Amino acid sequence: MAGAVDGGPKVAVIGLGSMGMGIASSLIGAGFSVTGCDIDPARVEFLKGEGGSADIRPAVAAKGADVLVTVVVNAAQTEAVLFGADGCLSELAGKAVVISCATMAPEAARSIAGKVEATGRLYLDAPISGGSKRAASGDLTVLASGSAEAFREARPVLSAIAAKVYELGDVPGIGASFKMVNQLLAGVHIAAACEAVAFAARQGLDLAKVYEVITAAAGNSWMFENRVPHILSGDYSPQSAVSIFTKDLGILLDMARSDSFPLPVTGAALQMFLMAAAAGMARDDDASVVRVYERLTGIPLPIGK
Amino acid sequence: MAGAVDGGPKVAVIGLGSMGMGIASSLIGAGFSVTGCDIDPARVEFLKGEGGSADIRPAVAAKGADVLVTVVVNAAQTEAVLFGADGCLSELAGKAVVISCATMAPEAARSIAGKVEATGRLYLDAPISGGSKRAASGDLTVLASGSAEAFREARPVLSAIAAKVYELGDVPGIGASFKMVNQLLAGVHIAAACEAVAFAARQGLDLAKVYEVITAAAGNSWMFENRVPHILSGDYSPQSAVSIFTKDLGILLDMARSDSFPLPVTGAALQMFLMAAAAGMARDDDASVVRVYERLTGIPLPIGK
Repeated sequence: MAGAVDGGPKVAVIGLGSMGMGIASSLIGAGFSVTGCDIDPARVEFLKGEGGSADIRPAVAAKGADVLVTVVVNAAQTEAVLFGADGCLSELAGKAVVISCATMAPEAARSIAGKVEATGRLYLDAPISGGSKRAASGDLTVLASGSAEAFREARPVLSAIAAKVYELGDVPGIGASFKMVNQLLAGVHIAAACEAVAFAARQGLDLAKVYEVITAAAGNSWMFENRVPHILSGDYSPQSAVSIFTKDLGILLDMARSDSFPLPVTGAALQMFLMAAAAGMARDDDASVVRVYERLTGIPLPIGK
Repeated sequence: MAGAVDGGPKVAVIGLGSMGMGIASSLIGAGFSVTGCDIDPARVEFLKGEGGSADIRPAVAAKGADVLVTVVVNAAQTEAVLFGADGCLSELAGKAVVISCATMAPEAARSIAGKVEATGRLYLDAPISGGSKRAASGDLTVLASGSAEAFREARPVLSAIAAKVYELGDVPGIGASFKMVNQLLAGVHIAAACEAVAFAARQGLDLAKVYEVITAAAGNSWMFENRVPHILSGDYSPQSAVSIFTKDLGILLDMARSDSFPLPVTGAALQMFLMAAAAGMARDDDASVVRVYERLTGIPLPIGK
C-alpha cells in the first residue's frame, strides 16, 4: 500500500457513512492528510477522533484539496456536494481530481464529469464494491474509468483504499456501467436467496442443512453464501440495507426502460425489495426480503438473540 | 471408491442420456455387473461397447437386478419405467432398492416410493447434481433421503457414482425438496446471468472484461461463472438444455401455486426460458436465454467458430 509523504496530496472525503468512514480511516492510516465531511455532526466528531480534520460543510472540508473523494448515496447527492449551494468544487485546488464513488447511471457520471472537467479539474468515475468491512481495511474493489491523467493523479489514493482497481476505460461512465451490471446480479441473487430459503422453510427443510448443501452446489452465489447466515442467525441489523437495492435496481430499470430494454428478472427482484421497504424494513439488512415471506405466509424463520 | 466383488449386486441403469450413461460407465469402471436401458438403440449399443449389457426394454434390462438406478427426465417417466406396460418393478429381486435420480416434486417422490415399498422393495429419493462431466467421472453430488435400510443397500452404488452423498432425511421427498431449492437458484442465476450480459452488451461493455470483473465481485454465482463462457465463445451446444429449466422451474411453480406460495423471481426466470424455447432453442444450451435478447434487441454477441 502506497503511503503519502510529507507534502503529499491533501485529500477530502465527503460522506462519512460506513463506506466513506472506512475510506477516510484507510487514508489516514496510509499517511495522507485527510479532511472529512458529513451532515451528521457525530460522524464528523468520530473522524476527528481517528486523527482527521472534519467539518459538516463540504466547501470548508474540501478547501485546497488536491483529491476529492465523494462517497455519497447517488448522483443527486454527488451533484449537491460539488455544485450545490454549499458545494465544494470551486474550493478545490485548480488541478484537483474528483474520485466519484457513488453508484449512478452512466449518463449521470458523464454529465457530472463534464461539469467538473469544464473547470479544468479531473474526474474519475470510480464506483466501489466490497462492503463496510473491506472499506475499513483498505481492501475495496474499484471499478474505474477516466482519462490517463485522472488515473495518474488518483492512483496513490486508490492504492490506499482498494485491494483491486479495475481500469475499465478512458472515459467516465464505463465504471458506472460495470457497477450497474454487478448490482443487477447482486440484487437478483439476494432476492433469489430469500425466495429459495422461504420456499425451503415452507417445505419444512432444515435451513442450516440447506445452506450447507447449496453452498457446495450449482445453486450457489456470492450473495447466497454471504447473506443467508444473516437469516440463519435471525440478525437483520443492516450490513447493507434494503434501501440500497430499491435505489440501485430502480436506477437499472429506469436506464433500461428509457432504452426500451426489458429486464424482467431484475424487475421482479425490485418488487421484492419494495415489498420489504413497504413493510417498514427499508433500513434493515437486505436479507429482510425473506421476512416479507414470514409476514405473508407465516413460515418459521430462525429468531435472533 | 468402493468396487464390487464377484457375486456383488447386479445393477440396472434405466435411461442412458448424458447423466445415465456416465453413471453406468462409472459403475462398470468400479466393477459392478451393469445392464443399461434406453429407448434409443444407439445408446444401448454404446453401453455394450463400454462393457455393459443393455436392452431397449426396462423389464428385460432389470431382470433380477438388486439395484435399479432410474435416470430419466421426470416423475412420469419414472412411473412408466417402474409401473408401465413394459415396466420393470416386478422383475427386480425381491429385496431390491430403487435409486430414483429424476428431478421431481416431493409429493411425486413420496407417491412413487409408496408404490415401490408396497411390493416389499426399498426406495431411495436420490436426485443428482453436477452435470455430465462429473457423471462420467463418478463425481456427482447426490441429495438423498430414505430409510436406513434403503441407504445401506444403495451405498456401494452411490459411492461409485458420487463424490458427495448428502443423507438428508429418513423418508423419500426430502431429497426432492433440496433438489428443487437448488434448481430454483440455478435457474434464476442462469436467467440473471443472461439478462446481465445482455444489458452489458447493450451498454457497449467488453464482455470478457465483464466476466473477469463479475467473477471477482459480489455479483458472482456458480452459474454465472460456468455459463457465461458459453456466451463468450458463442457455443450453445447443449451442456444442459433450456428444456431442463422450463421443466424444473415449471415443477417449482406448480408446487408453489398449489400451496398458494408466491415465487415472483422464479416466475420471471421461467418466462425467460419459455421465450428461448418459443424461439426454437429448447434443445440448445440454457445460456441461450441471452439469444432471446439478441433476437429482440440486436445486441452484439460473440459468434462461435
